[in-house]
Amino acid sequence: MKHYLSVKDIDSLPDWVSEARKLKSNPRAFEYLGKGKTICLLFFNNSLRTRLSTQKAALNLGMEVMVMNFGSEGWQLEFEDGVVMNQGKSEHIKEATKVVSQFCDIVAIRAFASLTNKEKDEAEVVLNGFTKFASIPVVNMESSVAHPLQALADAITLDEQNTKAKPKVVLSWAPHPKALPHAVANSFVEMMQLQDVDFVITHPEGYELNPQITKDMVIEYNQKKACKNADFIYVKNWSSYSDYGKVLSQDSDWMMTSEKLGNAKFMHCLPVRRNVVVEDAVLDGEQSLVIEQANNRTFAAQVVLKKILES
Amino acid sequence: MKHYLSVKDIDSLPDWVSEARKLKSNPRAFEYLGKGKTICLLFFNNSLRTRLSTQKAALNLGMEVMVMNFGSEGWQLEFEDGVVMNQGKSEHIKEATKVVSQFCDIVAIRAFASLTNKEKDEAEVVLNGFTKFASIPVVNMESSVAHPLQALADAITLDEQNTKAKPKVVLSWAPHPKALPHAVANSFVEMMQLQDVDFVITHPEGYELNPQITKDMVIEYNQKKACKNADFIYVKNWSSYSDYGKVLSQDSDWMMTSEKLGNAKFMHCLPVRRNVVVEDAVLDGEQSLVIEQANNRTFAAQVVLKKILES
Amino acid sequence: MKHYLSVKDIDSLPDWVSEARKLKSNPRAFEYLGKGKTICLLFFNNSLRTRLSTQKAALNLGMEVMVMNFGSEGWQLEFEDGVVMNQGKSEHIKEATKVVSQFCDIVAIRAFASLTNKEKDEAEVVLNGFTKFASIPVVNMESSVAHPLQALADAITLDEQNTKAKPKVVLSWAPHPKALPHAVANSFVEMMQLQDVDFVITHPEGYELNPQITKDMVIEYNQKKACKNADFIYVKNWSSYSDYGKVLSQDSDWMMTSEKLGNAKFMHCLPVRRNVVVEDAVLDGEQSLVIEQANNRTFAAQVVLKKILES
Repeated sequence: MKHYLSVKDIDSLPDWVSEARKLKSNPRAFEYLGKGKTICLLFFNNSLRTRLSTQKAALNLGMEVMVMNFGSEGWQLEFEDGVVMNQGKSEHIKEATKVVSQFCDIVAIRAFASLTNKEKDEAEVVLNGFTKFASIPVVNMESSVAHPLQALADAITLDEQNTKAKPKVVLSWAPHPKALPHAVANSFVEMMQLQDVDFVITHPEGYELNPQITKDMVIEYNQKKACKNADFIYVKNWSSYSDYGKVLSQDSDWMMTSEKLGNAKFMHCLPVRRNVVVEDAVLDGEQSLVIEQANNRTFAAQVVLKKILES
Repeated sequence: MKHYLSVKDIDSLPDWVSEARKLKSNPRAFEYLGKGKTICLLFFNNSLRTRLSTQKAALNLGMEVMVMNFGSEGWQLEFEDGVVMNQGKSEHIKEATKVVSQFCDIVAIRAFASLTNKEKDEAEVVLNGFTKFASIPVVNMESSVAHPLQALADAITLDEQNTKAKPKVVLSWAPHPKALPHAVANSFVEMMQLQDVDFVITHPEGYELNPQITKDMVIEYNQKKACKNADFIYVKNWSSYSDYGKVLSQDSDWMMTSEKLGNAKFMHCLPVRRNVVVEDAVLDGEQSLVIEQANNRTFAAQVVLKKILES
Repeated sequence: MKHYLSVKDIDSLPDWVSEARKLKSNPRAFEYLGKGKTICLLFFNNSLRTRLSTQKAALNLGMEVMVMNFGSEGWQLEFEDGVVMNQGKSEHIKEATKVVSQFCDIVAIRAFASLTNKEKDEAEVVLNGFTKFASIPVVNMESSVAHPLQALADAITLDEQNTKAKPKVVLSWAPHPKALPHAVANSFVEMMQLQDVDFVITHPEGYELNPQITKDMVIEYNQKKACKNADFIYVKNWSSYSDYGKVLSQDSDWMMTSEKLGNAKFMHCLPVRRNVVVEDAVLDGEQSLVIEQANNRTFAAQVVLKKILES
């Protein structure tokens, strides 16, 4: 494997999940693998789970880690080709990527969607810039349209928790005061397409995700109906895709509650706004998997890095 | 030992000081102890000594260190219970602490007093939030009301420098242009309560520390009288406790001078404002212990981490 | 060797370059040398190449690395002697340097020129403050007037690429929208004084570098004439030295082009503004050495750290 940019880079999900679970039971088993190798974690946006779990995964594999807040500690990057750089940008993505490639063996990037320009966001200028010009493997730590490390951690969590041949999994939109990207929802949808699950997406009308991602998956606008008899309910806010980046609804009726949850397990990528996205009783209850999802971020990252190191 | 939150968590000061001094003479002797273990240093405020000395202490014990400026690199935290999180705060302390606990074995926190709300400061929402919800040991790298790593370094320094059965130790307030917290003074006072010393606190009227901390210790409002025949004078500014967070005096007569110091050794936690808190002649003179105090920060942190790793 | 502050600290350039090239072919050969040793990288300004390459160099030598953005993460420093510190500065350089010396074995500093006060910039208050008061070796990661790690990487690159007994090397000024420091140009000039090269400096009138640095080196105001038959052309913008820190010209005729480059190799320290300093065709062409210069930053830093560790 060269890069880990999206869920599509997983060649065999069962193998990856199985390997991640083995790593979880013995995190330092492959400490020799990364000896003398360095990973750069480059953040263009804030991070808690991704920052710490990816560091931890790399350390578990014996790697050296260099963390950098690219925006505040480095130089403003230019992404356009052929531009006269006489404005605020000091360095072109071409040089930045090739330079970083001299100092490490793997580079991991976080660069969120702007939510102001759909075309630019979908072009994934930062991630694709690194993939195009860097001479080393690139790992996506959440880009404009995908968060495949999160989706892999979610798949590990589902595998650990599921007891049925074909569980019912619901992805439910929830309200949020700010406009949020689609990356987590997109990658979760793509991950469900790799699984033998009864999958339903529920959200208010106008919140349809990119149809090229959701394809022919079931969309049910009635949240209660969608959640009925669910085994797992993954809750997440996202802004409108068609009316790009807009908050069309803050309808608190869409908040996840114990009542709607029923006997399902509750999932969320975190950070989560309590009593806006989900009520306290769910998060503090026995059916919440959110902390285990966070825990599995380490082993999702670790299986990705291990596969890169081995190839 | 589970946590190191205050001086009260020291079970035997003589043992700890003796162990710290042994570590100082052979810092890498217990490098095996932290192998494969990770410490997260989470900063909600700036730091120089604490940042570098705690890292160094962890490295001396063979640990891996992940440093994070929580405020600027992570998410704004909510601390209130049951709140509807529809304002600026993205993540609740409950999730943040439990998540961090997945990625490391020890977490160390710096979160200063606001000095605007006494009740909130004394509730120690950040430190106590971590202690309550994290599943791993918590180390206080200066909280609203305590700085026990500094106080332990001070105790080590006193032990190294003292030649008397019962030395006279003075804690003297000094002027400062900004309102400063009480944490260092509080922990030093608590530390003196564990020692066989002749202890005097001196400050202008109105600058009394929390009486629940100072208890029946001697307070002398005449600085010159207080300092007479002292063996050690610890100088520190703090803002008013009763008129909470206010600067009531900037009287330069309270600056420490060679004359007032007499034959005593001079102590301060640093950073220090020259010729405001203390005159150049004292800091640049032979009786100043400030650099050795800073040096001992490493071994204070190291004995704390060692005890946590061993338990 | 105690410090590495300028090109003048290189005792034998051929030996250093040869050693750097050996390190490049086997970067981990001296991993034992830095075991248990710590380097602090203190940044008062942004950095990409220097931050990552110096970390990497230290890791290659088995050192532990502590990186700190001094300005945003630490305390504002006072540099004046005898001042009453009742304004914005919290800590004096005297204490800061002595304290840092307690926690690491080598300290590396980046502190750019202000370009507003020539006298202050030339006094190198940050770098010289550390050199004067720190008890440990100091490495210059670009100061007001020098960038000797860059110049050493440039010397390694020249050595690798040169095929002539006495190559012609040109240092050409280029336009830039912002006022930039003289550090890179100064150190490159000093480096050329250590080499058997036919060296020409070219820039518009009014852009003369400090004559105490350029001494009797050839200055040619006609860029095309200067570049004729060059083997290496090093392009760099700097602001005026005589009219200190001013941008006197943004004449785009001074941009480096393929035509002016001829058969020469193109060098630049990066970051570089495309189509302002140099046209795309040069940077994207076969004659550009900029990525290899960046790569050699690691081995420049590594030979410096190795020499310090060995002494």
